[in-house]
Amino acid sequence: MLSHRAFPVQPWCLRETELHLGMLAQSESLFALSNGHLGWRGNLDEGEPHGLPGSYLNGCYERRPLPYAEAGYGFPESGETIINITNGKPLRLLVDDEPFDVRYGMLRSHERELDFRAGTLHRTAEWTSPAGRSIRVTSTRLVSLTQRSVAAICYAVEPLDEPAQFVVQSELVANEQLPQPRRDPRAAAVLQAPLLGESHVADAGGGLLIHRTRHTKLRVAAAMRHIVDSPAGCRQVSESSPDLARLTISVPLEPGQRLRLVKFVSYGWSGVRSLPALRDQVEGALTAANQIGWDGLLARQQAYLASFWQRADVELDGDPEVQQAVRFGLFHVLQACARAEAQAIPAKGLTGPGYDGHAFWDTETFVLPMLTCTSPDAAADALRWRHSTLGQAVERARQLGLRGAAFPWRTISGAECSGYWPAGTAAFHVNADIADAAQRYVHITGDAEFEAGPGLALLVQTARLWLSLGHYDGHGNFRIDGVTGPDEYSALNDNNVYTNLTAALNLRAAADAVGRHPDQARTLSVSASEPQEWRRAADAMAIPYDAELGVHPQAEGFTRHEVWDFASTRKSQYPLLRHFPYFDLYRKQVVKQADLVLAMHKHPDAFSPEQKVRNFAYYERLTVRDSSLSAVTQAVIAAEVGHLELAHDYLAETALIDLADAEHNVRDGLHLAALAGSWTAIVGGLGGLRGRHGMLTFAPRLPSGIARLTFTVSAHGQPVRVEVTSTAATYTLAVGPPAQFGHHGQVVTLTPGQPLTLGIPPRPQVSPVSQPRGREPLRRSARRARREPSQQ
Amino acid sequence: MLSHRAFPVQPWCLRETELHLGMLAQSESLFALSNGHLGWRGNLDEGEPHGLPGSYLNGCYERRPLPYAEAGYGFPESGETIINITNGKPLRLLVDDEPFDVRYGMLRSHERELDFRAGTLHRTAEWTSPAGRSIRVTSTRLVSLTQRSVAAICYAVEPLDEPAQFVVQSELVANEQLPQPRRDPRAAAVLQAPLLGESHVADAGGGLLIHRTRHTKLRVAAAMRHIVDSPAGCRQVSESSPDLARLTISVPLEPGQRLRLVKFVSYGWSGVRSLPALRDQVEGALTAANQIGWDGLLARQQAYLASFWQRADVELDGDPEVQQAVRFGLFHVLQACARAEAQAIPAKGLTGPGYDGHAFWDTETFVLPMLTCTSPDAAADALRWRHSTLGQAVERARQLGLRGAAFPWRTISGAECSGYWPAGTAAFHVNADIADAAQRYVHITGDAEFEAGPGLALLVQTARLWLSLGHYDGHGNFRIDGVTGPDEYSALNDNNVYTNLTAALNLRAAADAVGRHPDQARTLSVSASEPQEWRRAADAMAIPYDAELGVHPQAEGFTRHEVWDFASTRKSQYPLLRHFPYFDLYRKQVVKQADLVLAMHKHPDAFSPEQKVRNFAYYERLTVRDSSLSAVTQAVIAAEVGHLELAHDYLAETALIDLADAEHNVRDGLHLAALAGSWTAIVGGLGGLRGRHGMLTFAPRLPSGIARLTFTVSAHGQPVRVEVTSTAATYTLAVGPPAQFGHHGQVVTLTPGQPLTLGIPPRPQVSPVSQPRGREPLRRSARRARREPSQQ
Repeated sequence: MLSHRAFPVQPWCLRETELHLGMLAQSESLFALSNGHLGWRGNLDEGEPHGLPGSYLNGCYERRPLPYAEAGYGFPESGETIINITNGKPLRLLVDDEPFDVRYGMLRSHERELDFRAGTLHRTAEWTSPAGRSIRVTSTRLVSLTQRSVAAICYAVEPLDEPAQFVVQSELVANEQLPQPRRDPRAAAVLQAPLLGESHVADAGGGLLIHRTRHTKLRVAAAMRHIVDSPAGCRQVSESSPDLARLTISVPLEPGQRLRLVKFVSYGWSGVRSLPALRDQVEGALTAANQIGWDGLLARQQAYLASFWQRADVELDGDPEVQQAVRFGLFHVLQACARAEAQAIPAKGLTGPGYDGHAFWDTETFVLPMLTCTSPDAAADALRWRHSTLGQAVERARQLGLRGAAFPWRTISGAECSGYWPAGTAAFHVNADIADAAQRYVHITGDAEFEAGPGLALLVQTARLWLSLGHYDGHGNFRIDGVTGPDEYSALNDNNVYTNLTAALNLRAAADAVGRHPDQARTLSVSASEPQEWRRAADAMAIPYDAELGVHPQAEGFTRHEVWDFASTRKSQYPLLRHFPYFDLYRKQVVKQADLVLAMHKHPDAFSPEQKVRNFAYYERLTVRDSSLSAVTQAVIAAEVGHLELAHDYLAETALIDLADAEHNVRDGLHLAALAGSWTAIVGGLGGLRGRHGMLTFAPRLPSGIARLTFTVSAHGQPVRVEVTSTAATYTLAVGPPAQFGHHGQVVTLTPGQPLTLGIPPRPQVSPVSQPRGREPLRRSARRARREPSQQ
Repeated sequence: MLSHRAFPVQPWCLRETELHLGMLAQSESLFALSNGHLGWRGNLDEGEPHGLPGSYLNGCYERRPLPYAEAGYGFPESGETIINITNGKPLRLLVDDEPFDVRYGMLRSHERELDFRAGTLHRTAEWTSPAGRSIRVTSTRLVSLTQRSVAAICYAVEPLDEPAQFVVQSELVANEQLPQPRRDPRAAAVLQAPLLGESHVADAGGGLLIHRTRHTKLRVAAAMRHIVDSPAGCRQVSESSPDLARLTISVPLEPGQRLRLVKFVSYGWSGVRSLPALRDQVEGALTAANQIGWDGLLARQQAYLASFWQRADVELDGDPEVQQAVRFGLFHVLQACARAEAQAIPAKGLTGPGYDGHAFWDTETFVLPMLTCTSPDAAADALRWRHSTLGQAVERARQLGLRGAAFPWRTISGAECSGYWPAGTAAFHVNADIADAAQRYVHITGDAEFEAGPGLALLVQTARLWLSLGHYDGHGNFRIDGVTGPDEYSALNDNNVYTNLTAALNLRAAADAVGRHPDQARTLSVSASEPQEWRRAADAMAIPYDAELGVHPQAEGFTRHEVWDFASTRKSQYPLLRHFPYFDLYRKQVVKQADLVLAMHKHPDAFSPEQKVRNFAYYERLTVRDSSLSAVTQAVIAAEVGHLELAHDYLAETALIDLADAEHNVRDGLHLAALAGSWTAIVGGLGGLRGRHGMLTFAPRLPSGIARLTFTVSAHGQPVRVEVTSTAATYTLAVGPPAQFGHHGQVVTLTPGQPLTLGIPPRPQVSPVSQPRGREPLRRSARRARREPSQQ
């Protein structure tokens, strides 16, 4: 767990005021910069010490064989792993021949600041070398949100009290040696030296490296150019070899003098473009960056972010720690998707190699709800990426003996990379999640062109999958047997409620979309009877219910299983999957992550209010949250059923997941779904936002620790600003035609320029709920209680 | 499929009259010799050509890492593979410098005969070399059933028409090169050169090689000695190197002269004994063999087998093909277990490397029933081997968070070697199968010493396992959730009927045994309450029943699943597991091997006669028999419910499994469980034998194609001979006190020397049953119908 002292609570930045060498890997993830295409971990400029060096290009991966002790038909034969591409960050520094390395000499001061509005990582360090020379280093780094291929560093050094000879080596380094992986299934396979050199160039002021991956044959180019601002006496030398391009700048500096350089780095990769084409591409990007200049890049970065915050910012009065964490999270979500364009949004963005750089259902289920309401273009890009892999999904369905499309559980390229099928291939709900995301995007944006194109294809092919996956039993119920739902501590169950409800929605959405776009449906060979069959299956969908207990089993039979022995489980035995066999987890009532509770969030009208209260209480005492994908959903339903303080607790857990390193693996990258989920916990939880047949409905209600909340949701291009206090909610529409929406069950019409203030009904009375022993969330109320006496 | 023409139907031997090079690997398995300790595949004397060279010592294995694409807690980290140890068979021959190799020159005649009463493999070949020299080679090979470490070959060569120079190289060869494995999950991992040389000796007339395995550190010694009978002019040279010991005999022979040599080979292995100790052991065994002499070995072999056949033979008038196959099978079962002693009976015996040489539940469930009634000492040995691994099973249970003992799904040493847990570790029924076998052994033999010792420990530790695996639901039912039953096309189900019934039997048997042996129970720390808890759980055991269909689902929910689309499944798509994903198989009604039907065999009183008829018909149309462990059980229940011709069909399928190469993998070794099962199909099926509370009950009834059947069953040391015709059964007790047994529901008392003939009631009328399209068994009636016209 990261010490919070290192990060003072500030509303618009993440600041680090001390350097803890043992926490380097974690801070590299937290301070990562990315634009969704290119990612740079927050490694120190001088390269070492490091936790985990990392530079990534979205979609640039290598294949490796997947081994099996006992293989089976349809097991994927190869996996995909994101590779650490050419590192353009290194700016090594020598002071009178002694390398600037914080492990030697004395680090007199250190500060890093990730600025959420500037989009930069700024660093200041004062260091005294072992020989007694004191210097100051400042650097500001950005990965451009406007110039997709470009990163830049503004780097300055100066002597503090005595003259010294300074040498700066600015480098491109390929095939960096990587630390050995830990024994953690969530970590990544390590591919040493994945890049084969194809070309290297050094020229005055810059250099270029071009490589190719061994098996996937992807060509990767990186180039750099520098603007050096130096007193007289500066000498520069450029050199290159297959894995290194280097510009060396040497200059003697007096106190008061400084060496400042701006390093522009550009990247490109392609599986099809030739070496000269790729070379020209990166050199062209450098030329453009050079013309825009450092100040120009900074200004464009700031403007881009200003627009984002206007759409996406959330204000939360009363809990500044969560306020900061939510903005930190939203900033990183933007970084993960801003320019991903034709590529996936991986579970960890481009902040680290965790989960091999794969994308999961996380994207559609936890990231896209926020993007759809705040950055719909990015949501459309992500859905278009899925659509681009439809051919592979159709082929995979065919291989599995199914119709339509079977999207992969985890992938980079679109191919299934899951090496453990009960928790991979069998988790077919990912297909309904994709359809749900596509439908939500269309409902909220009204993007008819998307719906008629990629949206329709996604809906139709996933609907076909469900029809071939399910069957009618003797009583006319449509059953989906032997699949794995969201909860990874269960597998291969019949009629998982979440899966079946989401599949039913998928089937109806496909039928509706075919009705709206009959011509395009014909190009997908949709027959006249198909939509009828989809509706019939949706209407007949089996939803198990345990009448005796008055709750929904998350899948058939679940509530008859033995309850996990929480009393005998020690805190050190979490996450359970690392201390107990799947065998034991699967057969007992123990829930890794919200499953039935997620069904209640995604399908608000499929459960009565009383069922929601009972179901929530039932699953609350079984859910251990060994997944980062749980607290957000628990926050949403806790708020809905009236446990508002608990919702606040779960919101905080979600928002702080990486700042607190709650999962002990932030070194491998951030948890994008949870970070995006903090928006959902606020807007869907405290704000009560649901989408119902295209209309937004709110049911805002604040926990005692939050005095005021504002957020903005865009629908059909119209941003609705919502301001909530403990007693009332005020809705404001800036532009456009009047819009209808729901407030606590009441349908109201909002006219632009005429804010509407509506009262909040009293919160429902509910009995307290409990969590498994030792897995209770940290209480925000306890934190305040602890803090308040010391403030007196 | 092997051509039957190659094997003329004969009652007491398997004869091959032509050599098919494409079938070498298959014939090597069929002609394998073994005594349960040492196994030699039926490779040609001259070593080449071969399908798969193979010499095995039971329990002599190497470890290898088990890889996983995504590992999980409790997955075994290493596997075990039986190794091809030093080959003592080679007798290479050169005729005027041309090697005798059937691929060159002309093989004028070839015959091999495996004699079930002599226990020998005899070979005669006449060959003309490419240079035109014609010779005759005869060899007789045995692996001694009385001298556990010894094999011997009597080898003779003679020129047929012209004088020639003969050179015979008699060898011990270690680390033979093995063919690359096929892509078949049932085949073995191939370990190339697993033996590290420790010592080699050549002396006059013999040689010795000692090796050690790399990881398991097992020492393996092989030695040979020869008796040469030759005309004058014979020269002998001995030599050795780490992987080769060789005696070369050179002699000119005229027509009418012959060179005859007897080669004695002895083997030993140990994980603890020193090199000198092991060397002395194999040399001592050679000295003993030499003293007994070739004729002595032959005589002892024959006497040993005569005793076996007296106990175990089955006569079957009307189907000579099955008669031969059944004796072939029983002979191989004897070979697999005769001298296994402290080692397992692997699924393939020592006839090939299939399944890595592992033992499974096959032993206790399919092999021991036959051995218990015919060779109880061998059954006791097999159970003692299981008991010797109890410590590892207790440790494995602890690792899985369970109490008692969890025996491995597949193993050589006792460690779990299954690399796919849903079909391995989760198949907990193996533990009840072991308990069932131990209890059956005690009931049938009355071996109180065994019961008080290993038997009690096995029953108690497995009972403890079940108590910790199951739990009581809200209605007081004892449930066993999330386990895999016998059918490998289902996995991780709740309340598998076979598992639950067998576990209940296990629990009661343990409580009973504790009651009979209270002092010994105390040494196992059995508390006063434990037997009560076991009985309570057994009495409360959940047995699902589908009242709507009037059948037992093999596990909860099974009958609600979609029925496999047999109509669209092509013949070439069997076995299904090689053409469809587990995902699809597990979620549908398709049965690889008898599961609920096996429950009806093992628990005859848990089902009403009407339920048996309905259940059999229901599962018959779902069962594809992609496992060799199915037809035997289907034969037994088909006979019981009145489908006698179908029982005959399944008996034939079981008995002919390897002679017909029905599974297309006999090259990797024989299917011991199915071969032993042919006895069960006859005695339990046509004879109707069941064990009920220690009393044997029979219900004999013959299909139309079998005119007369005899078999012998021993209980409490008293052999009961049973002779069945279409109308009556005659029971004969040779010795001992009068015995009670059952005949078609009637309890009768049999007095020694007073045979009792009882009538057979008419067969019940039942509606025809059907199998999945293309998976019907071959009809014996059709075979007879085909054959009879041609005999007119």
